[in-house]
Amino acid sequence: MPEESIMKKAMQRYIDGFNQKDAKALISLFANNAKIEDPVGGGKIVEGIEAITAFYELAVTLVDKLELAAPIRGSHSNAAAMAFTIFMKDEGQTIRINCIDVMTFNESGKIIDMKAYHGPSDVMEQ
Amino acid sequence: MPEESIMKKAMQRYIDGFNQKDAKALISLFANNAKIEDPVGGGKIVEGIEAITAFYELAVTLVDKLELAAPIRGSHSNAAAMAFTIFMKDEGQTIRINCIDVMTFNESGKIIDMKAYHGPSDVMEQ
Repeated sequence: MPEESIMKKAMQRYIDGFNQKDAKALISLFANNAKIEDPVGGGKIVEGIEAITAFYELAVTLVDKLELAAPIRGSHSNAAAMAFTIFMKDEGQTIRINCIDVMTFNESGKIIDMKAYHGPSDVMEQ
Repeated sequence: MPEESIMKKAMQRYIDGFNQKDAKALISLFANNAKIEDPVGGGKIVEGIEAITAFYELAVTLVDKLELAAPIRGSHSNAAAMAFTIFMKDEGQTIRINCIDVMTFNESGKIIDMKAYHGPSDVMEQ
């Protein structure tokens, strides 16, 4: 099980990777067989490193910045969670999305599962 | 699937229930067959309304207050999440715990699953 500090550092790198528009840094945080559900219930699972690569290569072009809303939380197992705000473009409009990500990690400290909690009521025009 | 607004209101009532030391209000938010993992990885699952009743009757005596750290997040399915801070007593000492709860709801808008993400590094002396 990865140390809490390793999971929290990976999640901070996730925030930093977006803010530096560094898709490679983001992709390197994930295991080859990782799964992403963003948003939860959105009906689409991004699975495997190829799909994840395409997902973040596009995402960094749409996201202006991520801002942590509170300190990253760990757990007593291989999961951690963080609340943050996404500032991004959506069909020409700049929007803000309140989000909480829950990430699960493998033994090597790579993300194997990511779930992003945000719904229609969490999206605001800026 | 419950509306996002119903899930968010239930989670706000969870915060308010603690702040009013109202165990009954907290217990009424849960389905009879609900499960609680608090903290995630802590090795203990609280399952069923009797165990949940005992859990919150004790919890309200230990918790001074809960403070939301950011707006409650919904999702596109039957789950919602919130980041908050727990102010509580632990063996005579007052501590603060950074926490994120993920809650899953049934058709009736009752909580069927709650996972509380906080680890050793999220607990601070006040």
